[in-house]
Amino acid sequence: MSFSPLIQQLIKALRCLPGVGPKSAQRMALHLLEHDRPAALVLAGALQEAVDRVGECESCRTLSEEPICGICASRSRDATLLCVLESPVDMLAIEQTGGFGGYYFVLKGHLSPIDGVGPEDLGIDRLMERLERGEVKEVILATNPTVEGEATAHYIAEQVRELDIRVSRIAHGVPVGGELEFIDGGTLAHALAGRRSLV
Amino acid sequence: MSFSPLIQQLIKALRCLPGVGPKSAQRMALHLLEHDRPAALVLAGALQEAVDRVGECESCRTLSEEPICGICASRSRDATLLCVLESPVDMLAIEQTGGFGGYYFVLKGHLSPIDGVGPEDLGIDRLMERLERGEVKEVILATNPTVEGEATAHYIAEQVRELDIRVSRIAHGVPVGGELEFIDGGTLAHALAGRRSLV
Ligand SMILES: [Zn+2]
Ligand SMILES: [Zn+2]
Repeated sequence: MSFSPLIQQLIKALRCLPGVGPKSAQRMALHLLEHDRPAALVLAGALQEAVDRVGECESCRTLSEEPICGICASRSRDATLLCVLESPVDMLAIEQTGGFGGYYFVLKGHLSPIDGVGPEDLGIDRLMERLERGEVKEVILATNPTVEGEATAHYIAEQVRELDIRVSRIAHGVPVGGELEFIDGGTLAHALAGRRSLV
Repeated sequence: MSFSPLIQQLIKALRCLPGVGPKSAQRMALHLLEHDRPAALVLAGALQEAVDRVGECESCRTLSEEPICGICASRSRDATLLCVLESPVDMLAIEQTGGFGGYYFVLKGHLSPIDGVGPEDLGIDRLMERLERGEVKEVILATNPTVEGEATAHYIAEQVRELDIRVSRIAHGVPVGGELEFIDGGTLAHALAGRRSLV
């Protein structure tokens, strides 16, 4: 015995959510059907509407249902600083620190020749066109500290240098509040090499 | 800054899923919009269809899109045994043990005077009508081993006894594979009181 076909179909569909295994999907499906059908309909509508209407910002490529996102539309930010990121979540993470007042450019991924992801797929041509307009004075490369993220940052840095624009990379080091014994060797080595004088 | 209104709406809607907090909801929404829009549409459709068409089995009250569920429709089970449960998940759990061949009745909850949940809300009137037909010889009360589940089992037991039908309650005891030191005192006391002779 198992659940009826439509319940099984719902359980299977819920598995598309990251972090949701067979047990959680089952619990979610039964919870909605037994206790919260209005919420299930709201969720169905929200999924449909977001898929139909959320596209990307023409300027920074983040997810947005407006042609130009809220940040790019703002006139009160520092147009000389441009932060390049792999994804919209990273953009939110940086915004939430409150420590950056420039604009963003979202690659939506990293270079991956094996998967056929080249510079055009990441909009690097559009990034270069934007830099050629001359307003940006510094490009901050905030791709992930992974092999692919580093390679992507390196590739963009090479291109940007030709335009005589400053390029920087976010610092590697020990996370604030982290305990040294639990930090991997590579990070520790970077933290040592990047040490700053205190006086 | 935060996400655009439609993305925020989707993140909020995903919070209706049990176990999904703000961080996971955000990760889910972005994952779907960035990497799996077809799956998001499949999920929207599955939610809509399940809410529209899944009702309850007229016989056992489990979730089912057919008027009579697969188990109740089966002619090959033991009609003298009826197992009473709180929810459809419990029914699945017992079916999966392979150790029960009778039919089920799902209360969809437990008695809770404070929340205004009385016997009729749990279909206990329908359960009694079914028992009065005379085919069932034993009612197995498999409500949860909680205060409310025990109270509900006790209430049903009182009613069933008047019909001269056997009533039993699933055994309390130590879980198979459990280690005594990690088992709570109440369960241990039940396990001792319910001990069985080995010879
Ligand atoms: Zn933008
Ligand atoms: Zn049924």
